[in-house]
Amino acid sequence: MHFSSESVEVLIEQFLKLPTVGRKTARRLAAWVLKMPRGEVEALVAALLAVKDRVSECPICQNATDRLPCALCRSEKRDHSVVCVVEESSDVAALERTGEYSGVYHVLHGVISPLDGIGPDELKIRELVSRVAGKGETNTIGNEAPRIEEVILAVNPTVEGDTTAFYISQLLSSFDVTITRLARGLPIGGDLTYVDEATLSRALEGRRPM
Amino acid sequence: MHFSSESVEVLIEQFLKLPTVGRKTARRLAAWVLKMPRGEVEALVAALLAVKDRVSECPICQNATDRLPCALCRSEKRDHSVVCVVEESSDVAALERTGEYSGVYHVLHGVISPLDGIGPDELKIRELVSRVAGKGETNTIGNEAPRIEEVILAVNPTVEGDTTAFYISQLLSSFDVTITRLARGLPIGGDLTYVDEATLSRALEGRRPM
Repeated sequence: MHFSSESVEVLIEQFLKLPTVGRKTARRLAAWVLKMPRGEVEALVAALLAVKDRVSECPICQNATDRLPCALCRSEKRDHSVVCVVEESSDVAALERTGEYSGVYHVLHGVISPLDGIGPDELKIRELVSRVAGKGETNTIGNEAPRIEEVILAVNPTVEGDTTAFYISQLLSSFDVTITRLARGLPIGGDLTYVDEATLSRALEGRRPM
Repeated sequence: MHFSSESVEVLIEQFLKLPTVGRKTARRLAAWVLKMPRGEVEALVAALLAVKDRVSECPICQNATDRLPCALCRSEKRDHSVVCVVEESSDVAALERTGEYSGVYHVLHGVISPLDGIGPDELKIRELVSRVAGKGETNTIGNEAPRIEEVILAVNPTVEGDTTAFYISQLLSSFDVTITRLARGLPIGGDLTYVDEATLSRALEGRRPM
């Protein structure tokens, strides 16, 4: 009852459930909402509900999308023979921002993590195998799904990511498909002195001729 | 179109309007909302709308409240002869958390800041003067508002806060009321070496016998 308004307290509790939001930030956000014009709060509310109402998973790449199949899977400008496997929708956004990738994606919606009770069946791995096997959903360009020639495993460089990548590469080994993964090494702008040993080892291991 | 879902992009833009939320956090929050069960999103939406629908300003202290007058102004346990003047509702919450204050409050909803176009008329200063003059809204304890004996100016120790405090103290000088302000000095847990000069000067100036 500190704020003297129960509605504000309830809103603070709701904000606390979001990631990156601690009690101080939750209080600050609630104070902000108190001052926001009603129209702006309604716009935020509409955007929240729209995400629940309109967004679903693309039947091909499993990414979050408003239209089925998603714009990337529908695009004729993309190379549909190269599939980049990522953990989350946000990774698609990160790769798209590089402007370097012209293939399509496959979103796993997580990584294998036995400690969190997440096994292969909780992820979109079965859908990936069907897609590589040519049995998945077709896109709208042709009547047949184009043959997949390369699968890039772009999972995060963590223990869980490595496990997931290994598991998928084993599953796909029986297919005639090239399996690659993202390079590991020094991050651009990094400093040799401060980089961690694991990264530096990988950078040495993966050294390339100038 | 990075996320391949327009609804998600719209939600990111909405999150970006909130304080403390940058683009990375906005993306992370949107990804979180994507995964939230619909019921939880609806609870957040309901809390947001409830703040706009149910919360208004207490006619006595101007604090945000669901019931008029607010619980603090209605309380018989509070000392209604002492009024603590603060900038924002969140300052009431901060002072209540100390558990040291048993008086009532007056929320200005800002500070005098000519550069931002905020003058005394944009704040709840007129309401404070009426209250001290005994012409304000009465609370529900008696038929008459109790006489105010002390006004504590608990505005922030900033240039704008100091200006506002000075302005209010001038306005109230004609009334038979004690005007005080919060002590300035070293914050608890602070370190003399790292404290700024202005704070250290104030701490010296305000030194007290042991």
